[in-house]
Amino acid sequence: MDSRNGSAPQIPLDAEMESFFDSAPPLKDSAGITQKLKEFIEFNSAPPGKGSPRRVVCVTSGGTTVPLEQRCVRYIDNFSSGHRGATSTEYFIKAGYAVIFLYRRGTFQPYCRSLPEDPLLECFECSDDSSIRVRQPYTEAVKRAISDHHAAVAGGHLLKLPFTTIFEYLQMLQTIAMSVRALGSHAVFYLAAAVSDFYVPWKSMAEHKIQSASGPMDMRLVQVPKMLSVLKKGWVPMAFCISFKLETDSKILLEKAEMALKKYGMHMVVANELSTRKEEVTVVTGNEKILVCCDKTQPDSDVEKPLIELIVGRHSAYVKDSDC
Amino acid sequence: MDSRNGSAPQIPLDAEMESFFDSAPPLKDSAGITQKLKEFIEFNSAPPGKGSPRRVVCVTSGGTTVPLEQRCVRYIDNFSSGHRGATSTEYFIKAGYAVIFLYRRGTFQPYCRSLPEDPLLECFECSDDSSIRVRQPYTEAVKRAISDHHAAVAGGHLLKLPFTTIFEYLQMLQTIAMSVRALGSHAVFYLAAAVSDFYVPWKSMAEHKIQSASGPMDMRLVQVPKMLSVLKKGWVPMAFCISFKLETDSKILLEKAEMALKKYGMHMVVANELSTRKEEVTVVTGNEKILVCCDKTQPDSDVEKPLIELIVGRHSAYVKDSDC
Repeated sequence: MDSRNGSAPQIPLDAEMESFFDSAPPLKDSAGITQKLKEFIEFNSAPPGKGSPRRVVCVTSGGTTVPLEQRCVRYIDNFSSGHRGATSTEYFIKAGYAVIFLYRRGTFQPYCRSLPEDPLLECFECSDDSSIRVRQPYTEAVKRAISDHHAAVAGGHLLKLPFTTIFEYLQMLQTIAMSVRALGSHAVFYLAAAVSDFYVPWKSMAEHKIQSASGPMDMRLVQVPKMLSVLKKGWVPMAFCISFKLETDSKILLEKAEMALKKYGMHMVVANELSTRKEEVTVVTGNEKILVCCDKTQPDSDVEKPLIELIVGRHSAYVKDSDC
Repeated sequence: MDSRNGSAPQIPLDAEMESFFDSAPPLKDSAGITQKLKEFIEFNSAPPGKGSPRRVVCVTSGGTTVPLEQRCVRYIDNFSSGHRGATSTEYFIKAGYAVIFLYRRGTFQPYCRSLPEDPLLECFECSDDSSIRVRQPYTEAVKRAISDHHAAVAGGHLLKLPFTTIFEYLQMLQTIAMSVRALGSHAVFYLAAAVSDFYVPWKSMAEHKIQSASGPMDMRLVQVPKMLSVLKKGWVPMAFCISFKLETDSKILLEKAEMALKKYGMHMVVANELSTRKEEVTVVTGNEKILVCCDKTQPDSDVEKPLIELIVGRHSAYVKDSDC
């Protein structure tokens, strides 16, 4: 995809970003993705019948990969189950948003988080008359997954776009940004994906599988350009933007979250530590640090419910301010 | 797991391998895995009722990961869908073998290869009375997946053991080797997993997430010890062993397969090229190169059917020879 051609608005790219996009392999079916986004946004801006327009949030989810070879056998992966993004998507839809779910292939899907890893083989059985039925403990969870997921997609409130590599991810994020730009402050970016910090530029990559015969392997990886800055300052200057900071070392976490907030012009940075991220996160804004916890008195409670409530409230205030 | 303690047989390890195992994080539930293997092998060696003993094959499947940090956020992955291992497992079971399926979490499962990527959300729907039913084009495939898979597992012919990292993979392979060692020539190793060539020794690994602030990242990876050699020469000297060689460059493929055959004492090496691996492979033995192709006149034919037929024939001859 090239934002500088066709009828797309001229969106500034800094030099580092430009060189990243120039060297990336072209995105497959870029026109098809753009068309899907156009229809999704049009539908949600003016739903048929009596529905009122929905705000649009782009939720990114799962980790990106960095290929080490052009014909990809080996790659570096960033761990992320996609649980945060999938769960948050459910709450955003419940709160009346339309969600563009930009997710890593194979990671958690909305409405499926309470199911086992391999639901087909774990949750179903063949009965004696050779019909398929859901196994007892999973009946409700399976029904909910299939019906709620179908309702969201068929109802036009959930658009799912899969990626694998860092190249696909950043190109698709740019395409989405261009598509929602006109929504101004009504658009939200909720950037929960674990994006690789380092990559091997496509052109300096080995064409064939790296051979192992010749001793240790030395690799030089260069930094992925920080697209948060370009996204907020260039692509969607009016959108409400939330990014995530994950660290394994709690000592440096809040400091790094504050730095990201200032450096990239985010409205909120959600700071999470690897070992406690399912129970609590700290939301860092320009003048606050808000600890958000799951309700431990309730079974199956999660931190995403209060987190999305907080975000929806702040986004509403932001829309009001922007409209004045 | 430590082969030098307890009642396990003394199995030689070369120095490189020993240092790999010494530095690896301990395998979780090692005792549970050993117990499962023991019961599986006992059951198949003397099945209850009139059943005759089954030969045992260990099929490895999918790619291993190499963690770059101890609290793992980033890792290097070897691409492999696990299609070859899952499909081969079906044919081995059909041919009367008991299969230990050592597979990478999240990769293809036996009997599920004709299903879409996300079968729960793609293949099912909620009917008007809110019951779950299989969507039309998938009815037969879903039924076959669930019933055949269940028959294999419940019948005691399929034991599934998942891994993620190279450390787990090699430790589990050693445990399996120790468990089937007494079966002598009746045991087969079909090593279809894509095993990492390089790794970062656990002790020299960063404890926390590597920080991206300080410019490019240089990494030194060292070679994973070649366990094929240790497996064949030390752990299971009587087993029938088949390894795989995957290359993207067809020019060096056969040469590398022949080298592997000699160096590691394999009975067969299956040479496959990335782009044509689903249609054909070349089986390299001590004195032959046998091209094995799928039957292009049949719909849904695969290369695994003739490949497993060939292997079963050769293994039978090998068992006969060994028994003389």
